[in-house]
Amino acid sequence: MLIYIAGSGAMGCRFGKQLHEAGNDVILLDKWEDHIQAIRENGLKVSGDEEKVVNIPIMRPEEAKEQADLVILFTKAMQLPDMLEAIQDVIGPDTQVLCLLNGLGHQEVISKYVPEKNIIMGVTVWTAQLQGPGHVYLASTGSINIQSLNPDGQDKGKEIADVLSKANLNAIYDEDVIPSIWRKACVNGTMNSNCALLDCKIGELFASEDGLTIVHEIIHEFVVVGQAEGVALNEEEITDYVMQTSKSAAHHYPSMHQDLVQNNRYTEIDFINGAVSRLGRNHDIATPYCDLITQLIHAKEDVLIGKK
Amino acid sequence: MLIYIAGSGAMGCRFGKQLHEAGNDVILLDKWEDHIQAIRENGLKVSGDEEKVVNIPIMRPEEAKEQADLVILFTKAMQLPDMLEAIQDVIGPDTQVLCLLNGLGHQEVISKYVPEKNIIMGVTVWTAQLQGPGHVYLASTGSINIQSLNPDGQDKGKEIADVLSKANLNAIYDEDVIPSIWRKACVNGTMNSNCALLDCKIGELFASEDGLTIVHEIIHEFVVVGQAEGVALNEEEITDYVMQTSKSAAHHYPSMHQDLVQNNRYTEIDFINGAVSRLGRNHDIATPYCDLITQLIHAKEDVLIGKK
Repeated sequence: MLIYIAGSGAMGCRFGKQLHEAGNDVILLDKWEDHIQAIRENGLKVSGDEEKVVNIPIMRPEEAKEQADLVILFTKAMQLPDMLEAIQDVIGPDTQVLCLLNGLGHQEVISKYVPEKNIIMGVTVWTAQLQGPGHVYLASTGSINIQSLNPDGQDKGKEIADVLSKANLNAIYDEDVIPSIWRKACVNGTMNSNCALLDCKIGELFASEDGLTIVHEIIHEFVVVGQAEGVALNEEEITDYVMQTSKSAAHHYPSMHQDLVQNNRYTEIDFINGAVSRLGRNHDIATPYCDLITQLIHAKEDVLIGKK
Repeated sequence: MLIYIAGSGAMGCRFGKQLHEAGNDVILLDKWEDHIQAIRENGLKVSGDEEKVVNIPIMRPEEAKEQADLVILFTKAMQLPDMLEAIQDVIGPDTQVLCLLNGLGHQEVISKYVPEKNIIMGVTVWTAQLQGPGHVYLASTGSINIQSLNPDGQDKGKEIADVLSKANLNAIYDEDVIPSIWRKACVNGTMNSNCALLDCKIGELFASEDGLTIVHEIIHEFVVVGQAEGVALNEEEITDYVMQTSKSAAHHYPSMHQDLVQNNRYTEIDFINGAVSRLGRNHDIATPYCDLITQLIHAKEDVLIGKK
C-alpha cells in the first residue's frame, strides 16, 4: 500500500515509521529542509523505547506525484490548505485521506480537495517528540480511533483501520468519532492556550484555583457549542477526562507553549478555542472565554513574533 | 500642618518631599525596613529633574501616634485595610484623609475608619519611580484632582487643595472627581493587566490588533458598570483618553508588570478589573473580559509566587 505522510513532524514520523516497518510503501512529506536533508543522508533516527535508524524516503510536498492509496494528514492546522494544494496529484478518485490534525473544523477544508466518501476523521492518543532534524523520540503506547465521514466510505475506513492495526498502531473503527475529536480539542483548549499564556506547566495551571475556574468555563463553552453543532458531548464526562489528562501530563509544557513561548511560532489557536468562538457565533452562543483567550494568544503572537 | 504620608513608595515620596519643602511637618510612613533605614541614615535621595537629599522623618505605621491634620493614603490597594488599622491614633475627629490609591472601591474601606465628611477622594497624573531603598526618581510635571466625598467636607477639601498647590502639586478642587477616578482605573484595567499577562510594553499591546480588541471590550465593561453605579462616563471620551495615554506611555512597562513579572509580587487586580467584575455582579451586568483577566492574573500570581 502506498502511503504518504503529509506532515512529518514527531507524530508523522511515528506513524510513518510503524507503517513502513509493517511492509507498506511509506513516503514522508515535509517542508523543513534540515529535516529532509537529515533523513535523506542518515535515515530517520529513532530513540526512546528502541534505538535504531530507519531508512524511509522523504520529499517536499510538491515533489509527490504518485497516486496514493492512503494519505495521512499530520500538518499543523494552519498548514493544512497549503499541504492539500501541494499534493493534489497524489489524491486520486480512490485515495483515502485520514485526518489526524489537532483541533476542529478540518473537514470543511479537506472537502474542497477530497470526495467526502474518501475522508476519514481520526483522533489519537499516541505521542512522539522531535529531538531535532531527522531524530524522533518514541516511548510508551497509544491508540487511534477513526471513522469515515460518509457512510459510503465505511468499508474502506475499516480496511484502513486494519492497515493501521497491522502496524501496531491499535486502531479502532469508531462508529462515532466526532465526540472524541471534540474531547481532545477541549483538552487542548484548556491546557494549551492557558499554559502558553501563563508560561507554565499543565500541573501548575491545574493547581491554581483561578486556573481551574478558567478551565471549567472553557469546557462549558466547548460543550454548549459542540451540542449546538449536533455533537453528543457530556460536560461531566469531558471534565473528568480533562482532569484525568491534567494529572498524567502535569509535568509537561503543552505543544502550544513549545510553539509560542519556546520557539516563537504561530499557534493553532484559531482551530481550537478560536474554532469554538467561530462556531458559537453561527449559533448565537456567547463564548467570551474562548474569544478572549484566542485574542490574547494572537496578541502574544504579535508581541513575540510580529504580525502575520 | 502635620501631614502623614501613609505609604511612602515612589508617589508617597514625591508628595512627601514637595509638601515638606513647602514648610509642612511631613512624616513618611512605610513598612519596608530597608527603605526606612536608608532614609533615616542618609535622608531621602532625589534624582531626576533635580539631584538632592531631603531630610524627612519616616516611621513604621504603628509608631505614628500624633493626631494629623492630613493623612494622604498612598498604599498599594490590598495594603489599605492594614494601614488604616495601624494608624488609628493618627486619625482624629478633624483629620482630613485624602485617598490617592489606584483602583476602585476604596471609599467603602476608608469609611470604616474615617467619618465621611473627612474623606477626600483624588486622582493624580504625577509620576515617580523608586530606584531603590531611600532613592526616588522625579521627573516632569503633573496635577491632582480632589473632591470631598461629602458636601459637608467641601470647605476643608478646598483648603487641602490649597495646601497641595502651595507645594506645587497643581491641585484642582474638582466638583466631580469620581469619573476621573474611573477613567484612570480604566487606563490601568486595560494596560496593566494585559501587559502583565502578555509580558510586554504598553506600545506593544496597542500595536496588536487583537490587543486593541481586548482593550475596547474592557473599556466597554468599565463604562457600562460605572454608569450602573451612577458615574457619568462617556465611552468615546474614555477610549480617546486611553489611546492618548497609550501613546505617551508606549515605551513603559506598567506597574502591574513591574509587580508581577519583574518582582513576583501580588497585584492590585482585585481593585481594577476585579472591582468591575464585582460591581457588575451587583447590577447583573456580565463582565466576562474583566472576569477572565482577573482570573488569569490570579492564576499567574499562583504560578509565579504561590498561593496567598
